[in-house]
Amino acid sequence: MKSKRPAVITLTTDFGITDWFVGVVKGVIARLAPESRVIDLTHAVPPGDLCSGAFCLMTGYRFFPKGTVHLTVVDPGVGSNRGMLAVQTVNYFFVGPDNGVLSWALLTEEIKAIHSLENEAYFLSPVSQTFQGRDIFAPVAAHLSRGVPIRRLGPAQNDLVRLRWNEPQATRRGQQGEIVYVDQFGNAITNLTAACLKDLGRAKLQVVLKGRRLCAVGNSYSCAPTGKAIAVLGSSGFLEIAVNRGNAAKRLGLCIGDYLEVEPIVD
Amino acid sequence: MKSKRPAVITLTTDFGITDWFVGVVKGVIARLAPESRVIDLTHAVPPGDLCSGAFCLMTGYRFFPKGTVHLTVVDPGVGSNRGMLAVQTVNYFFVGPDNGVLSWALLTEEIKAIHSLENEAYFLSPVSQTFQGRDIFAPVAAHLSRGVPIRRLGPAQNDLVRLRWNEPQATRRGQQGEIVYVDQFGNAITNLTAACLKDLGRAKLQVVLKGRRLCAVGNSYSCAPTGKAIAVLGSSGFLEIAVNRGNAAKRLGLCIGDYLEVEPIVD
Amino acid sequence: MKSKRPAVITLTTDFGITDWFVGVVKGVIARLAPESRVIDLTHAVPPGDLCSGAFCLMTGYRFFPKGTVHLTVVDPGVGSNRGMLAVQTVNYFFVGPDNGVLSWALLTEEIKAIHSLENEAYFLSPVSQTFQGRDIFAPVAAHLSRGVPIRRLGPAQNDLVRLRWNEPQATRRGQQGEIVYVDQFGNAITNLTAACLKDLGRAKLQVVLKGRRLCAVGNSYSCAPTGKAIAVLGSSGFLEIAVNRGNAAKRLGLCIGDYLEVEPIVD
Repeated sequence: MKSKRPAVITLTTDFGITDWFVGVVKGVIARLAPESRVIDLTHAVPPGDLCSGAFCLMTGYRFFPKGTVHLTVVDPGVGSNRGMLAVQTVNYFFVGPDNGVLSWALLTEEIKAIHSLENEAYFLSPVSQTFQGRDIFAPVAAHLSRGVPIRRLGPAQNDLVRLRWNEPQATRRGQQGEIVYVDQFGNAITNLTAACLKDLGRAKLQVVLKGRRLCAVGNSYSCAPTGKAIAVLGSSGFLEIAVNRGNAAKRLGLCIGDYLEVEPIVD
Repeated sequence: MKSKRPAVITLTTDFGITDWFVGVVKGVIARLAPESRVIDLTHAVPPGDLCSGAFCLMTGYRFFPKGTVHLTVVDPGVGSNRGMLAVQTVNYFFVGPDNGVLSWALLTEEIKAIHSLENEAYFLSPVSQTFQGRDIFAPVAAHLSRGVPIRRLGPAQNDLVRLRWNEPQATRRGQQGEIVYVDQFGNAITNLTAACLKDLGRAKLQVVLKGRRLCAVGNSYSCAPTGKAIAVLGSSGFLEIAVNRGNAAKRLGLCIGDYLEVEPIVD
Repeated sequence: MKSKRPAVITLTTDFGITDWFVGVVKGVIARLAPESRVIDLTHAVPPGDLCSGAFCLMTGYRFFPKGTVHLTVVDPGVGSNRGMLAVQTVNYFFVGPDNGVLSWALLTEEIKAIHSLENEAYFLSPVSQTFQGRDIFAPVAAHLSRGVPIRRLGPAQNDLVRLRWNEPQATRRGQQGEIVYVDQFGNAITNLTAACLKDLGRAKLQVVLKGRRLCAVGNSYSCAPTGKAIAVLGSSGFLEIAVNRGNAAKRLGLCIGDYLEVEPIVD
């Protein structure tokens, strides 16, 4: 074996951690790529929720070493005729079902190749109809991490199924965005980026929901008094609505899909 | 150190992941077997539930590399006079209390040796009365993973405590089985295997519960319309009752221990 | 690379495991210290609960290999002007915010150096205001695990913020302690140590709460009948109140901060 970093494989799934599902995926990887390092991104994607899975992957993938294989199994159509993919970008590999769950991470990654997973030589045998994360995706990720060329996995394809990602819209006063994810602490993450805010200039900004002021935009959670709302440019790179030491989504009744505006505060 | 695969140690426990218990077990293993690779099978076995722990282990153990040490601590009698075991089979090692939790995995593994854990040289010192997972089982698993011969751990014994595993029974029309596990998604897993179904020939099959038809047997969850029940040969190797994108156990009122029959559909 | 044990980095946080936060912390570590071994102590510290985080760390840290870097991020003041620390002791490194969360582990560890984290060369760039676990603490822990001298991280400081740790008090009849942690199984852990009990001599002991006998002190959970209370010297090194196969905190109404006494049973 060459003296190099062990390959990293990340896992993003809706398998939960109550049963043995994640464990056996790691067992399969340990058999095929014993020197790899497996890191859980999350296994708590709500069952079959493609947008939540896509957002977790989009937010997390770039913090991993170059060459990491990002294995993503949120697969409500397992056993149906949906496609299965491996994608090679300039920096990473992505493996998963062709149902859009990979697509948000690939908005900003330069794609080099997309191949359909059809070569059964890289699958477990037999393949079950209900757990292709174990039988197909995990072995494929393990083989990629060991340097198997992506072209061997199956025929190239031109594009993949993409989930719609709404871009923020300029409004009369500012920028309109929407809530795209609510984290476990109740922080409501929007699709508004640092660039959107920069476009609004140096004025102090506020967030408006359904015509009513929600909160100011600040630098950190602790800019607001305990229990009060604040919008901050979060660690995910997006503006998020938080309540200092509280649960913003519950307190303010915020849901995925809610539209809101960021605009300068007029004194 | 020889240039070989790092040894794998799996963990199956009822420790939960809220406190530090799993972490310190891994700390003890890292001290004694720093090159090993530890993989969680699950830590969410219901406290003291030997059958659930035994089923997780039985379903998961075979997906790991040859030589893996399967450490299983579901141990309601910790500190009492129940025995403690290491078992060597043709393919694996198993370590845990002698209370039956290892026994279902050993139904199909050829046993080479069973030794009682009595040699304190392979324990932490001192040994607590309440956390022998950390003080006895973890160090023993670490030592086995490094090649310590099993005979050094204590005297050989002939057999181990076994949990009852009910085999399916032939009925007038088909096969009677029972529900043995309900996973976190509500899929109700039975003790009926592919072989049981094969015995029923090529006819289309259905599942009958208490004299009423429950659902058809199909190839995948998505053979049923969304929200409808289907029985599929699951990834665990057993027939399981599922509801496409739903929770079968809740929807259909299924519980561990319920008997059901699989029989040909008569047109 | 020298032929030595891989460095261990433990994680103790209130990040939860539902979102991608823990995963990206591990991604950052994998980039900077690819040969390290990361072990979760817990990610289920209640959000911002410094005492629970401090107790988990205090109870768990000593089971890890010498040289382990204990990374602890319970940081309700993230983005405020609270300090950030690395501490080197005779056996370990500790990294975290200077808010007391490290202080209970350091009650019994001999401190060799404390340095403030100010050298941005060892941070990610840019540093977010809301996720310094990823941007500051994780990279610092990774660098320490690779042998970067602690003095390079920033200026030395003399002490750290300390949480109050109440010592048990001698009473007329015995020792008064208090409940300091309730684990997920409902075991109520006190600050009473083996040494406290030893001071009470060889008599049989009992636990008294608000003037009423709660239970006897025994050797193991199973000394009490199923469903009955027992106090045992727990695996954490402290006396804990348990109910054999039950939840002591719920059954007996025990809370963190409750005072109780241990005293000899007078026949």
